[in-house]
Amino acid sequence: MDGGEGVDDPLSRAAAEAADAADPLAGFRERFVADAAGVLYLDGNSLGRLPVATRARLAAAADEWGDRLVGGWPEWIDAPERTGDALAPLIGAEPGEVLVCDSTTVNLFKLVGAVAGEGALVTDRGNFPTDRHVLEGIAAQRGVELRQFDGEPDAATLPCGPGDVVVLSHVGYRTGAVADLPALQAAATERGATLIWDLSHSAGAIPVGLRAAGAELAVGCTYKYLNGGPGAPGYLYVARERQATLRSPIWGWFGQRDQFAMERGYDPDPSIRRFLAGTPPILGLAAVEEGVRLTAEAGIAALHAKAVALTERMIALHDAWLAPLGFALATPRDPARRGSHVALAHPEAWPLTRALIERAGVVPDFRGPDVIRLGVAPLYTGHADVWDALDRLRAIAARGEHRAYDAKPGRVT
Amino acid sequence: MDGGEGVDDPLSRAAAEAADAADPLAGFRERFVADAAGVLYLDGNSLGRLPVATRARLAAAADEWGDRLVGGWPEWIDAPERTGDALAPLIGAEPGEVLVCDSTTVNLFKLVGAVAGEGALVTDRGNFPTDRHVLEGIAAQRGVELRQFDGEPDAATLPCGPGDVVVLSHVGYRTGAVADLPALQAAATERGATLIWDLSHSAGAIPVGLRAAGAELAVGCTYKYLNGGPGAPGYLYVARERQATLRSPIWGWFGQRDQFAMERGYDPDPSIRRFLAGTPPILGLAAVEEGVRLTAEAGIAALHAKAVALTERMIALHDAWLAPLGFALATPRDPARRGSHVALAHPEAWPLTRALIERAGVVPDFRGPDVIRLGVAPLYTGHADVWDALDRLRAIAARGEHRAYDAKPGRVT
Repeated sequence: MDGGEGVDDPLSRAAAEAADAADPLAGFRERFVADAAGVLYLDGNSLGRLPVATRARLAAAADEWGDRLVGGWPEWIDAPERTGDALAPLIGAEPGEVLVCDSTTVNLFKLVGAVAGEGALVTDRGNFPTDRHVLEGIAAQRGVELRQFDGEPDAATLPCGPGDVVVLSHVGYRTGAVADLPALQAAATERGATLIWDLSHSAGAIPVGLRAAGAELAVGCTYKYLNGGPGAPGYLYVARERQATLRSPIWGWFGQRDQFAMERGYDPDPSIRRFLAGTPPILGLAAVEEGVRLTAEAGIAALHAKAVALTERMIALHDAWLAPLGFALATPRDPARRGSHVALAHPEAWPLTRALIERAGVVPDFRGPDVIRLGVAPLYTGHADVWDALDRLRAIAARGEHRAYDAKPGRVT
Repeated sequence: MDGGEGVDDPLSRAAAEAADAADPLAGFRERFVADAAGVLYLDGNSLGRLPVATRARLAAAADEWGDRLVGGWPEWIDAPERTGDALAPLIGAEPGEVLVCDSTTVNLFKLVGAVAGEGALVTDRGNFPTDRHVLEGIAAQRGVELRQFDGEPDAATLPCGPGDVVVLSHVGYRTGAVADLPALQAAATERGATLIWDLSHSAGAIPVGLRAAGAELAVGCTYKYLNGGPGAPGYLYVARERQATLRSPIWGWFGQRDQFAMERGYDPDPSIRRFLAGTPPILGLAAVEEGVRLTAEAGIAALHAKAVALTERMIALHDAWLAPLGFALATPRDPARRGSHVALAHPEAWPLTRALIERAGVVPDFRGPDVIRLGVAPLYTGHADVWDALDRLRAIAARGEHRAYDAKPGRVT
């Protein structure tokens, strides 16, 4: 492909190359394992790449198991808190406020169950399915109202009142839009509702600032921008001030105070450990710890600055190349309102996604009914990657190559 | 140490060596990684050893993540069922009836939540803490009766009636006693109660026979006799006939029918997948699959025969050497009523445990207030191991070497 007019043209490949050359995070790219096919991977917001260090760390974790046997437990037992403490600065929490354990779904179930009473359970209809499903289930079991609202969460209109429990995603999984966390938190608090944040699409890509906003509860996933591996354990955040008064609905032996004095009734640990349930997954936690460490080393400010620069470039190229071909930007243009992925709507989004993967070596993902989601992971995505991916997408669309693929969405991965 | 009277003396080391030489499972020992210190490990019932194959499998699983990225999901997505299908024959279940996912605690929470109504939640006071805690929590949240009974579960006296939910361990974690699963299942069913089995201390060591007994629900752990690694995912069993009518209390996107058609309300998958919640832990599942495969290769009949032979030897040596030193057998003498560990009660069990670990290179575990638990893992424990461990224990006790250790139990691992 032609690189355009050279470095002075902001739409040129030369300009993208120059941005990569000036990127302070460029060195992180080689700290990830390259995939065998050398794809242009724009799906780190679904599953992050494998850090080089994680390979060795997993081998070491296995050997620790083989060598130390049960003698490893005095160190392993603190892995959920230790990994949580490493994650805390990325989301504006303090040590002792974050646990890495269970899945995001189970963690959300624990937190909703800890605070739900007679009030409604509130979320937006566009929230990620598992968040909605957890609320649907608890509402059905307790016979309380499930209140799903249309449109993006807005502080002025957030439909909640005293005793309600609200679950919101900080960054929307389809649109990439950032919710105004401080304003929404203030609105919920003022109305007497409890707000639980889902940080799955923000942690590791944009700053969160939980404590600064007075946020009390959050959950999130570690297999996206935190590079913890497929199905890696999720995390939960409970502000220190709330820990002693909240109880997980799942009472288990790892949440028990003085766990190994076994012949007693349940008496939850006073710390955040009360939100543990069963035995924590040590191999999975080792992988999460490496991924989180790498992310924290880069620092959330630098990661966010690069995410903004990459998505700005993507939007500029979309406007110039793709809008004329029938694409529409489904992500906010204001960088302060945008996460680290860009959603492009197109009536043929599904066959375009298939063609990108199968003909062009570009891996985006598809979200029904009509969105191609292009994620940039600031630790390893470069400006030239963005240029190449959009260049290939415009070529496919311009030539109609995607029409060779079935128009009806199949199984998405 | 003196080996006694030679092979004709059943208490001699020579007799133990002869039994090892004749052991059809002897070859499995070298399929496990030897620990660096070469301890006499009698705690495989707490954490099983690392299989050699698991090291390579974990590396392959990491590389699969690095290479295939999201393209790995079409295979990974079935890992909970595939691993469950491999486990099924070890517990007398059929393909499609077992899922490996979440922790044992969370799985028990899901099953109790699926069947609990207005009836009492019933268990024995000696059941494993996390089982009791799950029931305590659900009873408190629903305002139903928690009924804990003393003594071992007995079909004639099992205190349950219509609508009650009973949770029993197949093998008791302290005593190693085997509950009469068919009789208890029949008694519960006849009384209109629903019974959930915890197989943590039986799966992989003794036959379970779930379907043959008409058992409908079970959970268990994979890091003991199934060698899945520290904190490895647990499993759950739901008899095929019950799947379509039961719902997990934790509604999540992996339990959803047609999971990737995202813009819908929750509609659980008709199969056992409805008991999934969040994204399954792929690295952890890879390790479980290897451990389970190795166990299934040996076959549960051969494993059980060896477990009986090892525990018979241990009891004979106890009677000859340890009973005169103040030990008492806390495990049934009838091999049909015994799991794969032997509990020795002694008022100084804690310092004896410390001395065994620190002076004698023997790793048992301690269960308060007065039990030394000696587990034999038929895949890798040998008869000479049993002989050596008990020989060292008698030497420590006879010389009073354990009195050098603090009598008060500390943190147990």
